[in-house]
Amino acid sequence: MEKEIPEPGPFEALCSPVAVLPCTSDVHSAHFRNAWPNRILGHEGVGRVEKVGAMVTDIHVGDIVAVPAVTPIWRGRQIAEGLHEHTGGFLGGRYLSSKLDGTFGEYFIIPDADMNLAVVPNGVSIKAAGLVGDMVTTGFSGVEGANIQFGDTVVVIGIGPVGLMSVAGAAIRGAGRLIAVGHRELTKELAKKYGATDVVDYKDGDIVAQIMELTNNEKVDRVIIAGGTESTINDAYRMVKCGGNISNVAGYDFSKEFHLTVADAGCLVNHVTLTGRLCAGGRYRLENLMALIKNGRLDPTLLITHELHGFDKIEDGFRMMDERKTPDTIKPIVII
Amino acid sequence: MEKEIPEPGPFEALCSPVAVLPCTSDVHSAHFRNAWPNRILGHEGVGRVEKVGAMVTDIHVGDIVAVPAVTPIWRGRQIAEGLHEHTGGFLGGRYLSSKLDGTFGEYFIIPDADMNLAVVPNGVSIKAAGLVGDMVTTGFSGVEGANIQFGDTVVVIGIGPVGLMSVAGAAIRGAGRLIAVGHRELTKELAKKYGATDVVDYKDGDIVAQIMELTNNEKVDRVIIAGGTESTINDAYRMVKCGGNISNVAGYDFSKEFHLTVADAGCLVNHVTLTGRLCAGGRYRLENLMALIKNGRLDPTLLITHELHGFDKIEDGFRMMDERKTPDTIKPIVII
Amino acid sequence: MEKEIPEPGPFEALCSPVAVLPCTSDVHSAHFRNAWPNRILGHEGVGRVEKVGAMVTDIHVGDIVAVPAVTPIWRGRQIAEGLHEHTGGFLGGRYLSSKLDGTFGEYFIIPDADMNLAVVPNGVSIKAAGLVGDMVTTGFSGVEGANIQFGDTVVVIGIGPVGLMSVAGAAIRGAGRLIAVGHRELTKELAKKYGATDVVDYKDGDIVAQIMELTNNEKVDRVIIAGGTESTINDAYRMVKCGGNISNVAGYDFSKEFHLTVADAGCLVNHVTLTGRLCAGGRYRLENLMALIKNGRLDPTLLITHELHGFDKIEDGFRMMDERKTPDTIKPIVII
Amino acid sequence: MEKEIPEPGPFEALCSPVAVLPCTSDVHSAHFRNAWPNRILGHEGVGRVEKVGAMVTDIHVGDIVAVPAVTPIWRGRQIAEGLHEHTGGFLGGRYLSSKLDGTFGEYFIIPDADMNLAVVPNGVSIKAAGLVGDMVTTGFSGVEGANIQFGDTVVVIGIGPVGLMSVAGAAIRGAGRLIAVGHRELTKELAKKYGATDVVDYKDGDIVAQIMELTNNEKVDRVIIAGGTESTINDAYRMVKCGGNISNVAGYDFSKEFHLTVADAGCLVNHVTLTGRLCAGGRYRLENLMALIKNGRLDPTLLITHELHGFDKIEDGFRMMDERKTPDTIKPIVII
Repeated sequence: MEKEIPEPGPFEALCSPVAVLPCTSDVHSAHFRNAWPNRILGHEGVGRVEKVGAMVTDIHVGDIVAVPAVTPIWRGRQIAEGLHEHTGGFLGGRYLSSKLDGTFGEYFIIPDADMNLAVVPNGVSIKAAGLVGDMVTTGFSGVEGANIQFGDTVVVIGIGPVGLMSVAGAAIRGAGRLIAVGHRELTKELAKKYGATDVVDYKDGDIVAQIMELTNNEKVDRVIIAGGTESTINDAYRMVKCGGNISNVAGYDFSKEFHLTVADAGCLVNHVTLTGRLCAGGRYRLENLMALIKNGRLDPTLLITHELHGFDKIEDGFRMMDERKTPDTIKPIVII
Repeated sequence: MEKEIPEPGPFEALCSPVAVLPCTSDVHSAHFRNAWPNRILGHEGVGRVEKVGAMVTDIHVGDIVAVPAVTPIWRGRQIAEGLHEHTGGFLGGRYLSSKLDGTFGEYFIIPDADMNLAVVPNGVSIKAAGLVGDMVTTGFSGVEGANIQFGDTVVVIGIGPVGLMSVAGAAIRGAGRLIAVGHRELTKELAKKYGATDVVDYKDGDIVAQIMELTNNEKVDRVIIAGGTESTINDAYRMVKCGGNISNVAGYDFSKEFHLTVADAGCLVNHVTLTGRLCAGGRYRLENLMALIKNGRLDPTLLITHELHGFDKIEDGFRMMDERKTPDTIKPIVII
Repeated sequence: MEKEIPEPGPFEALCSPVAVLPCTSDVHSAHFRNAWPNRILGHEGVGRVEKVGAMVTDIHVGDIVAVPAVTPIWRGRQIAEGLHEHTGGFLGGRYLSSKLDGTFGEYFIIPDADMNLAVVPNGVSIKAAGLVGDMVTTGFSGVEGANIQFGDTVVVIGIGPVGLMSVAGAAIRGAGRLIAVGHRELTKELAKKYGATDVVDYKDGDIVAQIMELTNNEKVDRVIIAGGTESTINDAYRMVKCGGNISNVAGYDFSKEFHLTVADAGCLVNHVTLTGRLCAGGRYRLENLMALIKNGRLDPTLLITHELHGFDKIEDGFRMMDERKTPDTIKPIVII
Repeated sequence: MEKEIPEPGPFEALCSPVAVLPCTSDVHSAHFRNAWPNRILGHEGVGRVEKVGAMVTDIHVGDIVAVPAVTPIWRGRQIAEGLHEHTGGFLGGRYLSSKLDGTFGEYFIIPDADMNLAVVPNGVSIKAAGLVGDMVTTGFSGVEGANIQFGDTVVVIGIGPVGLMSVAGAAIRGAGRLIAVGHRELTKELAKKYGATDVVDYKDGDIVAQIMELTNNEKVDRVIIAGGTESTINDAYRMVKCGGNISNVAGYDFSKEFHLTVADAGCLVNHVTLTGRLCAGGRYRLENLMALIKNGRLDPTLLITHELHGFDKIEDGFRMMDERKTPDTIKPIVII
């Protein structure tokens, strides 16, 4: 696709990609391409600032910046309410690869650059910085929605790259026992490296039964859903204690129906709290997450299974995610 | 049913009924009587303390006490976590008419009397005291789950006696616009008395469409579900803003399935929080609620449409709730 | 003072005053005038929009708008953290009469107009709208810091106009017993109208002793400080229960020291929470507060004891606040 | 001191000490011995259950149990409010060495044994179990009061054994940069092992100035006070951001006054929250903390600098804490 180099508006920055990371949701976006035809994909990566608008004050040409998947215009009622994924309405803070071209182009525009771009500090690698804008912030949003207290037993269902970051986040949020539910050997091993104390394989039978066996039939305190099907919410309700939390960061097919039964849902009087988030975005969120990396609390780069080089390798990386059922891919990065 | 007068255990109190209130869930209990055969129904009312166990210190013979629907043994992990409906497991704090005979007998036992019974203070009528243990506390639990902030637009779906108390509670929790969804003229009028600013009749068409019209297509901040069907949760999700809350205190048929679609649920990434509670119980909860009545913040007695007199009228009251589709019944009370 | 009519910047609005309200803190500002010499005072009022900057989209010339005392530039880390009084540092969101001329001039500039100005809706009078930007929002901020639960016993110390709004706010936040501490007959009566159940006169002796007598020696759940001296914090700690809250919205002399003793403070291990706020500001806050007025939850206009007319009466109103020890002034308004 | 072996009441357990740990507050207690003359000291340790009351169901003779410093009777309004340090009033949940003899005797009584004693699970050593009941729970209570968010910069002032546990707790609660303030080499090194990224020595000058230099003049998000003087609260206020938190678990001399100035306290309108706790107690708290140890999140035993053997060594251990200015003592344990 040939496009003109866009001109940044007064609050915007024009960036070139330093490293980009294809994501499963790019793949989904591609499948549903109808909504945003001819839109360049990509909402993860590290950029180099090439040009800034007249009113940008904190971000400068030449800065190497982490790019968040959520880059709202920081205005409106939602911002005043601390909600930046859904500015102006559902998913309204997600600009890249929808309202704007994404990071897979030679240049891309970031709206509200001072509020959205985070300069990569010393002590944080390009690879790590490339992961904070979606994988880390989404996984950690799942943790934040789960209300973990010191010593809680926590389950993370789904241990793709986001789920693995939920595991890592739960471990540094105070979880005691931490049970990861997945299947691939690679991700199961990585879950343990990130702090899982137990791993359950969903191909070995009903996951609720497996977890109840592990816990001696005690239900768990918090469940983070980072993958699954329309019935995973039932599993989550069935394994969580009265008074517990279910936090979703998984994506679902918009045309489907959940299979939630009254009985599984504890008649909706069980004091369980269900919430779900896309992911926190913007500059300050990324600065905080990079503070965790810089200070040695978190190393997200274990997620990167493949490092490709060159702009023309983006399509290869993209295809890896599309065919990620292969046992050896978690997350590829393409260094430009 | 003839039963012996039970003897209170060391922490228990034996009470006789002063006033009792039949409840829809008694009716449900009756329908599902199999689980607790021969159990006397009734979980609402005011009692007179007739005898107390050896370790009861605060409650005395002759005290006139409000009886909560939830009367846990105040021990165990759930109590340490502030959760008293579900002590020892789902619904474990609900003793009356299940693990113990209910308030419709000539005598009834209250477990853990010092922690569960609240002496009716001066300034609170028997009628009002009879309503706090279930109608008020359940309606107000719905409000508490809804996270209302000053000036929020709040919808209460279902305005039977519990829903009406959710309306009253939302008004004294800081709601701005407050939309009640019901059908019967009697309850619609009462909703307005309790603070509703608008009333929507679900027989006039899709309630989401009606509410969107009222609000000029702006979604609402919080939704309290106090009645409805397996699709009401969809309506709630469809009308609530990203970042908003849905709080359930309605009952559902355990054999049914909700009809929640991925699209209605905002893909579970819309930052909406869904929670549901039976109701807070115990002595201190009832003392706090009676403080609202005593200090003139709340008059729950408007709910009482029928006042019957005499032990033998309990069955009449009971039947009123069973057939409460009649336009003139909200809540009967039977003064013994 | 003669000044040129200022030109609004791209995000700003130029307003003319429709009604202004002198405030005690204007008086304080005047006393400390050194920091901002030649600055026009005034941070409360209603304006008419006379001109808007090129990037203002929601606010239009001719709009009648409520003006908040806190009008931040909605950018920076604090905004991302939901804190708008202190953008860029302590008190950084308070522009009027410090970084910018205040509302007492013939024209005044409002920064970030779309995020800060709230159009006065039908059903809200000019008088009421003039009170929301400081008196209501500050009093209600005190309530929000106090974590009131249904039925709590709440004390409001200081019942000038802000404290009276804390009384009103506590009543519609769920307080049960609500004790106001003041002295003037006028304010004591008004406190009762706004929902106080008891009034304590600080000239009648130690207020802690008086309150303990009222409550039968039970400490109270929450304390809101809206006036007092450097020892009021001690009183608050002495009367509040372990686990309770103290919320401050009173101003103090920056050169003074509190007299907090270890014993009064419960050795700082009493689980009491102390917090203090200037006031929430901005457009959405004011829209929410005006929703309370429009929907009949609150009538702040009872605060207005004097209504003056004409630009040249501002000084009279100002002097009333300075000398407000007079028994008949609570809050004057000057209609221009 | 010779005393008879006490008989456990119906809900109590009689224990013999397996390991005990002298605490600075024992030393303080000794100094203030007047309040509880002839009371055996000691509120930390591991016990063996020797006899249980008739109504104890979960704890059995022979169980090896962790003993919490806070062992309330789990009844009353505070319990219903989730507050167990102050049942029945200030410090009311602290029985050992005040209302009851402490752990330093040959036998000691634990009230409400089922709710207060936690069986030491496999995977938790006697040493570790001995530390959870006060050092870990108090340090972690400090963390819980500080409201730490992912990536926050956190300061812990005072790194005796409690402060070191606050450091460890902050690290597994999501702190990014974590600055410990102390003086002794031993504790400074240990702070780093427990996750401090920086150490400030209070003998090197004003700690606020030192921290501001470290952070490039940016204030910090959260401050935990676990030691210091009557001016430490001023330091905390001076270094914390608007909107931040100060959480105290340090002890102070009841006869003193804090030196809090209006200016340091940000006029109490800076949106800072100050709270303080003794420590969470009881069985479930200790079970949760031991879950952290068992699952490898925390090793508190690094605190133990001296291991003594035999009942007659308690006095030696006690003296070590009294004279703990010696550079090589953090926490002694006496294995009986």
